[in-house]
Amino acid sequence: RINGDRLWDALMDMAKIGPGIAGGNNRQTLTDSDAEGRNLFKTWCDEAGLTVDVDKMGTMFATRPGTDPNALPVYVGSHLDTQPTGGKYDGVLGVLGALEVVRTMNDLGIKTKHPIVVTNWTNEEGARFAPAMLASGVFAGVHSLDYAYGRKDPEGKTFGEELKRIGWLGEEEVGSRRMHAYFEYHIEQGPILEAEEKTIGVVTHCQGLWWLEFTLTGKEAHTGSTPMNMRVNAGLAMSRIIEMVQGVAMENQPGAVGGVGQVFFSPNSRNVLPGKVVFTVDIRSPDKAKLDRMRAKIEAEAPVICDALGVGYSVEAIGHFEPVTFDPKLVTAVRDAAEKLGYSHMNLISGAGHDACWAAKMAPATMVMCPCVGGLSHNEAEEISKEWATAGADVLFHAVLETAEI
Amino acid sequence: RINGDRLWDALMDMAKIGPGIAGGNNRQTLTDSDAEGRNLFKTWCDEAGLTVDVDKMGTMFATRPGTDPNALPVYVGSHLDTQPTGGKYDGVLGVLGALEVVRTMNDLGIKTKHPIVVTNWTNEEGARFAPAMLASGVFAGVHSLDYAYGRKDPEGKTFGEELKRIGWLGEEEVGSRRMHAYFEYHIEQGPILEAEEKTIGVVTHCQGLWWLEFTLTGKEAHTGSTPMNMRVNAGLAMSRIIEMVQGVAMENQPGAVGGVGQVFFSPNSRNVLPGKVVFTVDIRSPDKAKLDRMRAKIEAEAPVICDALGVGYSVEAIGHFEPVTFDPKLVTAVRDAAEKLGYSHMNLISGAGHDACWAAKMAPATMVMCPCVGGLSHNEAEEISKEWATAGADVLFHAVLETAEI
Ligand SMILES: NC(=O)NCCC(=O)O
Ligand SMILES: NC(=O)NCCC(=O)O
Repeated sequence: RINGDRLWDALMDMAKIGPGIAGGNNRQTLTDSDAEGRNLFKTWCDEAGLTVDVDKMGTMFATRPGTDPNALPVYVGSHLDTQPTGGKYDGVLGVLGALEVVRTMNDLGIKTKHPIVVTNWTNEEGARFAPAMLASGVFAGVHSLDYAYGRKDPEGKTFGEELKRIGWLGEEEVGSRRMHAYFEYHIEQGPILEAEEKTIGVVTHCQGLWWLEFTLTGKEAHTGSTPMNMRVNAGLAMSRIIEMVQGVAMENQPGAVGGVGQVFFSPNSRNVLPGKVVFTVDIRSPDKAKLDRMRAKIEAEAPVICDALGVGYSVEAIGHFEPVTFDPKLVTAVRDAAEKLGYSHMNLISGAGHDACWAAKMAPATMVMCPCVGGLSHNEAEEISKEWATAGADVLFHAVLETAEI
Repeated sequence: RINGDRLWDALMDMAKIGPGIAGGNNRQTLTDSDAEGRNLFKTWCDEAGLTVDVDKMGTMFATRPGTDPNALPVYVGSHLDTQPTGGKYDGVLGVLGALEVVRTMNDLGIKTKHPIVVTNWTNEEGARFAPAMLASGVFAGVHSLDYAYGRKDPEGKTFGEELKRIGWLGEEEVGSRRMHAYFEYHIEQGPILEAEEKTIGVVTHCQGLWWLEFTLTGKEAHTGSTPMNMRVNAGLAMSRIIEMVQGVAMENQPGAVGGVGQVFFSPNSRNVLPGKVVFTVDIRSPDKAKLDRMRAKIEAEAPVICDALGVGYSVEAIGHFEPVTFDPKLVTAVRDAAEKLGYSHMNLISGAGHDACWAAKMAPATMVMCPCVGGLSHNEAEEISKEWATAGADVLFHAVLETAEI
């Protein structure tokens, strides 16, 4: 069994870095707080006897050697970056859970055939730089390094500049590693485990995603002196598209979601009809055909909405991953571990994207989940119990042990 | 006749200060650019022999003495502040047109019984600090000085701090002046004069306005892992309210407008359903009963929309002026001047709000308008011809002369 108190203390210590405004965290990727969080994590890795390497995307790989020099490592990780108003556990639990696995191995003097690599992927959230899971995407060959370096935050700063600025640009080529297996432990971020009163989610799949960034061009004009029939109202077009996306998601129930979290009006002045509106539609489904049908429908209907208002229209897919089926053998290892340890469990499809989705392209991969209160995540009020955190880390420990071979 | 070339040169010189990104201006109130614009205007006033006084709202009053020590001044003015992506003429034409009137009087050695006071009101636009026409509103006793000083821009800076910071906090009590009459010259900001091929708008009325700031409270949650039926989607509620406002405006045609120019999503992250959405509805009508009915309908329907989605709701009226009827005698003076000078003219209702609306509470007031290309304003592409600018200033000159008595 892992040490639940130690894991919890580590979570609480990390949460002190980049505090939010409502009890959570704002430790967005490549900010000073991110650098501080990385430093603390590195100290802990050093103390645990791990060797920390950093690649050109800033991803941190902390290695505990194995006994067989020819055995590929088992990777166990997640991310330390958060949303601007994020919780204390999303991502962090997976990195510190992996660290706790290694600390427990140290405590118990366990040697494994395969090395263990505790991993902290850069920019999982995609809040500051779209898309999400950026570093693992480059690792998996889905994005080029240049593409990643050129991604811009809302202030126009690039990923490449910011990675250098915070001092975590490493030398290792991205994706040069080969993996025996990849495990990721994460809070569910949804309501199912709690509702079903299960402690462990055995993650069999992850749903796919499209991020569709719309740019609507209206005519900047005075809200008072511009007659209704002369308006080219990009904000009204956006409203209709948001409603349409809601409709598309609803008619694809169950097994689909759709919504809009980010909107920019320009010039965003009370008495100016917006000349430009940029917003991102987020649609997801575990069913690839359905996901692509939803995208097609949205991209077919949005221009009709815009045309009716004379609004100019363009759309760019700025984030995408296909639905993933995790490795059956690793999934079984997770289920067996939960069973052996006596934790209630059930199969889950991950609603959120994870670095595990890209890692699954490179190696057998899977995830372990624990419940979170009210299914709430991407919210500073995100909460889990110490018991849940401990149970998931226990399952992770045993599944990793099984895979890394004693 | 006034000197159209000199007026045009002054407009072009002022437009160099706080340039926009597309040929217009970003000289928002109480910014460094605003201070620079004021300095230039003051230099010109000094050169024209005017005495410049500044009140506690930063409004500039540049006086040309009259011949009768007991005669109240005729005020002629508008504003030098612009929208974030504003034009070169909105407001500026009225201030520099007034200056041109005085310069012409100087050229011709004309003395008037009543003093002439060229006026630059602070924060007419209301873009940086709501509401619009703030300084003239304090002057007219509609707002208290404390209320005005406490208004905040989107960064949280207050009007009071910023007025002090740019060095244009005057000592004169606001509203301590009495006026014989108030004239304001402005571009139409709407399409009517151009469509009707008239050079001069004789402004008989100004429509009224409500700015309704909505704050919607949703549940910040993950866009991927939060099932549709668990969402409390404040952005969707906003979209429905924008559509509803459009409907309310359309069913009140003719004689009503309604729209939304400003929207803030929080935390405004692509994969987070917004926990908070703040936006401002702008509705206007020349008919007070209709305007108030529109407000009542919007405030009755918005909570129904929000309740259906479980979204929390509050609304605050952050800007308001009632429809104004301008002084018949001054309106006649404007019409007579246009007639005498041989300019085509027609009666107009101002679609936008103006400092003249508040001045009308204190004294007989009216406005002169010239056309603008395509009715476009609150847009950097705002355009007028030198001929139009000259014609309006000519009419202003003669109407002011008539009222100030030679
Ligand atoms: N787990 C998580 O919140 N990842 C961010 C990417 C996504 O939006 O799914
Ligand atoms: N003239 C003008 O654009 N004033 C700003 C206030 C308003 O929105 O009407």
